[in-house]
Amino acid sequence: MDIFERIKQNPGPLGQFADYGEGYFIFPRLEGPIGPRMIFKGKEVIFWSANDYLGLCNHPEVKEADAKAAAEYGMFYPMGARAMSGETDQHLQLEKELAEFVQKENAYLLNFGYQGMVSIIDALVSRNDVIVYDVDSHACIVDGVRLHAGKRFTYKHNDLESLEKNLQRATKVAHENKGGILVITEGVFGMRGQQGKLKEICALKSKYNFRLLVDDAHGFGTLGRRGAGTGEEQECQDEIDVYFSTFAKSMAGFGAFVAGDRDIIRYLKFNLRSQIFAKSLTMPMVIGGLKRLELLRNRPEIKAKLWENVHKLQNGLKERGFNIGDTNTCVTPVMMQGSPIEATLLVKDLRENHGIFTSVVVYPVIPKGMILLRLIPTASHTDAEISATLDAFEAIHEKLVSGFYKAQEKKILQEQNLSFTAI
Amino acid sequence: MDIFERIKQNPGPLGQFADYGEGYFIFPRLEGPIGPRMIFKGKEVIFWSANDYLGLCNHPEVKEADAKAAAEYGMFYPMGARAMSGETDQHLQLEKELAEFVQKENAYLLNFGYQGMVSIIDALVSRNDVIVYDVDSHACIVDGVRLHAGKRFTYKHNDLESLEKNLQRATKVAHENKGGILVITEGVFGMRGQQGKLKEICALKSKYNFRLLVDDAHGFGTLGRRGAGTGEEQECQDEIDVYFSTFAKSMAGFGAFVAGDRDIIRYLKFNLRSQIFAKSLTMPMVIGGLKRLELLRNRPEIKAKLWENVHKLQNGLKERGFNIGDTNTCVTPVMMQGSPIEATLLVKDLRENHGIFTSVVVYPVIPKGMILLRLIPTASHTDAEISATLDAFEAIHEKLVSGFYKAQEKKILQEQNLSFTAI
Repeated sequence: MDIFERIKQNPGPLGQFADYGEGYFIFPRLEGPIGPRMIFKGKEVIFWSANDYLGLCNHPEVKEADAKAAAEYGMFYPMGARAMSGETDQHLQLEKELAEFVQKENAYLLNFGYQGMVSIIDALVSRNDVIVYDVDSHACIVDGVRLHAGKRFTYKHNDLESLEKNLQRATKVAHENKGGILVITEGVFGMRGQQGKLKEICALKSKYNFRLLVDDAHGFGTLGRRGAGTGEEQECQDEIDVYFSTFAKSMAGFGAFVAGDRDIIRYLKFNLRSQIFAKSLTMPMVIGGLKRLELLRNRPEIKAKLWENVHKLQNGLKERGFNIGDTNTCVTPVMMQGSPIEATLLVKDLRENHGIFTSVVVYPVIPKGMILLRLIPTASHTDAEISATLDAFEAIHEKLVSGFYKAQEKKILQEQNLSFTAI
Repeated sequence: MDIFERIKQNPGPLGQFADYGEGYFIFPRLEGPIGPRMIFKGKEVIFWSANDYLGLCNHPEVKEADAKAAAEYGMFYPMGARAMSGETDQHLQLEKELAEFVQKENAYLLNFGYQGMVSIIDALVSRNDVIVYDVDSHACIVDGVRLHAGKRFTYKHNDLESLEKNLQRATKVAHENKGGILVITEGVFGMRGQQGKLKEICALKSKYNFRLLVDDAHGFGTLGRRGAGTGEEQECQDEIDVYFSTFAKSMAGFGAFVAGDRDIIRYLKFNLRSQIFAKSLTMPMVIGGLKRLELLRNRPEIKAKLWENVHKLQNGLKERGFNIGDTNTCVTPVMMQGSPIEATLLVKDLRENHGIFTSVVVYPVIPKGMILLRLIPTASHTDAEISATLDAFEAIHEKLVSGFYKAQEKKILQEQNLSFTAI
């Protein structure tokens, strides 16, 4: 069958909701500066969907650094890949400071996090090696693993027993192939907010021979005494062999970096396909990155404020009887029971009548009958915004359990049936 | 074997030259504004290694647009993926204008070209489909094909007979699997400057049922009456089913776009993994992109100047007896005969004594015994810079054929032997 014919018949897992949800539940258009108040469909909403944990998006020093660098260099400098003509003193300086901050010998900047992670996995393993990775890993990890020509095993999400069982299988295969083992997990799982069990995973190194790669996108800047991430938080940073973080969360930017032993990072510098064959990270983000890192290091009060807000929000939700799962990070999921249609009615109510904007996740991403609203508290949210949100959640939750949305759902389905009959 | 042990033993195809070439032949550090004159190791060189075809890197209107947008939005706006919170009016506007410019119904911005292309290939094919692609395709195409779970065939570079043979094989497999066929080529091959034979490939659609995806990184902005690329140049744009270009060449930026039929682009919008699960293209590049596209459309004199320079350089080289292969684009390869050591001596001579900076490619990227120096003429180069370069090429070529570098090579190898014996 012609490729385009097939595509027209099957729009894909998200595409099937396109006509219903586009512009509202998916591809919504937010306006105004990024922050706890944004404009959605012409009305101000309290906004809980930006990973701007430290509020650096609107930090005057960050904006000034970005603007000055763009005025000097434009958006393109340096042109070309790092290997060709894209290496500058500023790139090397940011790498040096990042390595120091996450306490690794060496670091390397990546022009984009997603393809950076894909190429890291691709460069680290040969076909004789075995990959063992958490089943809930981010799409970029999954795509990296998909490039692997050898064996791979998933383990149950954050489940050490399952990890150990798969390490045993992997050890057998690796031994047969004379290969090694790469374990991959996230520092923080961005959907439900659990920390990866890094300390326990590292402890398994005494029993099994493997290397550990950690994607710490949501941990970097938010966790650990100095904000150096989940490895620092759990006091096992030394045993993370390859440490990765994007700049798209706490660092309020784009691009990413990878850090580890000097030799390994140098190897990656010469072997990451998406870096060898594509443009270097643009200079304004490098210079802006130095400023952001400076704020991470020197303004601990920002992270303290973030956590004050996290505790207020999470405690407030728990006191009101909400199920926020087992998050032990800033990521705040609120789990409720209901159908996908109830979920959309509830989210619409929340946005239109209470002015609260959150992301919503339903089946098939999470089990059937579950509604997950995800809140990302930041250092910029105010007490008033937290209170208003807690009140709104209480109101819509009461409606949900009282069957208010269920009744609306029935009416909608009846009307649809009527119109079907009419055709 | 432990993964890190293996890495330390085998530094990879480029890594093996790290100690010898780093900072000079690979990862050189250029300084100063991007343009025909840059600083290398403290000295000014005439620079031929930036894909800044139209010279937009230092166009005052481009720099002003970038700076203004960065001052207003910072480097991070909008935060989040397009699907989550990263859609803005400006993104949609640039998509509309790009679609119009390349004469397609619809276009979609990509946060980075490399991962964009990988995900386009990944989203277009199912495991029953067959991919047929030019063997010299860019790394991002190769990585996209590597994700494919079904059959793939390469055809000899730009060889229609080989393409047809592989289309026959592909048709058989596709028929058995009830799948379709995706043909992938580049509009312009960036190493040796040949245009992909798009018109002839499109003509094969009358005999075989396939869809055509074209990566026009080097064609967009440089080829075609209006600069709309290789499809326009060859008058077959309508038959290119999926048209792709990066912003990292003529557009003097980063990011990319894909264009095609309305339904297909909408499908891609909902199904590109690297776009659904990663940050939207940053606003300053979107606003800066609108400005660049305006210049492409409204300043035909820039492209005319580019081609004036291309002809001066290429004719000058041909008149002096140089072999520039069969380039029919701006990309200007100069092929010489010599060993890899002769190549490095020649390039060093060119940079140190003649102040000319070009990229150099040797075995294994090209056949043994060949030296390829690649020149990228731009609209910014002056007649004086072209003349100086032609003179320098003449001088080093004379030295090469007279055996000057060969004699140096012998001396180096002798000294190395002596030192080996001394150990």
